[in-house]
Amino acid sequence: ASWGGTATLGQIVVWDEPFFQGKRHEFTSECYSTPERGFNTVRSFRIESGAWVGFEHCGFQGQQFVLERGEYPCWEAWSGSNAYHVDRMSSFRPITCAEHGHSQLLLFEQENFQGRRGELSDDCPSLPALGWGSSAVGSFLVCSGAWVCSQYPGYRGFQYLLESDSHAGEYKHVREWGSHAQTGQVQSIRRVQQ
Amino acid sequence: ASWGGTATLGQIVVWDEPFFQGKRHEFTSECYSTPERGFNTVRSFRIESGAWVGFEHCGFQGQQFVLERGEYPCWEAWSGSNAYHVDRMSSFRPITCAEHGHSQLLLFEQENFQGRRGELSDDCPSLPALGWGSSAVGSFLVCSGAWVCSQYPGYRGFQYLLESDSHAGEYKHVREWGSHAQTGQVQSIRRVQQ
Repeated sequence: ASWGGTATLGQIVVWDEPFFQGKRHEFTSECYSTPERGFNTVRSFRIESGAWVGFEHCGFQGQQFVLERGEYPCWEAWSGSNAYHVDRMSSFRPITCAEHGHSQLLLFEQENFQGRRGELSDDCPSLPALGWGSSAVGSFLVCSGAWVCSQYPGYRGFQYLLESDSHAGEYKHVREWGSHAQTGQVQSIRRVQQ
Repeated sequence: ASWGGTATLGQIVVWDEPFFQGKRHEFTSECYSTPERGFNTVRSFRIESGAWVGFEHCGFQGQQFVLERGEYPCWEAWSGSNAYHVDRMSSFRPITCAEHGHSQLLLFEQENFQGRRGELSDDCPSLPALGWGSSAVGSFLVCSGAWVCSQYPGYRGFQYLLESDSHAGEYKHVREWGSHAQTGQVQSIRRVQQ
């Protein structure tokens, strides 16, 4: 379904106060460090076009937040249901390879593409419901598109971005899909919507 | 994709301590009040089969949590990224009409099925990305399957269950899709996976 025109150029508008208040700035490309751009905090934002990924720390480090078009008035709107909450965003960049209608992902039970293998081309809020026996994934191979995998069913908990145009789509070990990843626990996976 | 057999009968196993510790009980049908069943708190659970909806309060009241197959070791696993957190589940029931492969939903800009209309048969992490102009939905008509709509993009924030076999699939006003709904703000919608 598509009910209207969508701009293809990525654009994010950020504010330094919640609910779209305070200092405002538009970005159409990556921001390595919001403090260096005059924003000690980013407390609300709106994604005008494209898909983006935000990070807890500068330099694209720390917790990851996949951000699709829409309004994020406060930190609850982007932070996951994690034990520790991230009330700021310190760097962000566009996700350029998102292709919602044409995405393919291979997942493997063990690292280095070993063990039992599964294939996805659709969103999956519960890997166990598809018969994936383990609650962990050892490695991923992104054939096309961009995907986001989550710790818990229903896209809850820590999330990690997987891109076909990064690492040549190869994520051989849990360390490669997020600097803050503690475990390989992945129970839901979906495509990123551009 | 499907990689294994899945049981069709709904089953949930609950514990009164986090991480699957303490008193344990299996349910295969609804629980109106966990205290009446000897569980003052449910602090971890595993969905063995089927899809379920959990509630903050007894009698299927308060915040809703759509629960698909998998492990929920602590409250962060089921509670959304809301301002107030729900560290217990006091009632739950199976979602009987979930049909992941054959689901259809109509959404309307205004209450009572008035105004601009949209149709969905696939998951949508961002309604704005599909061109839905407003960040609110006025009413829903569930033609088939079960759906869960969320306040923010990417299935974050408050969530509300929409079922084809409840209210005859008619949700004419924001008051009808959740006892705790404060606004009609809906920015993502997806099918429930059985």
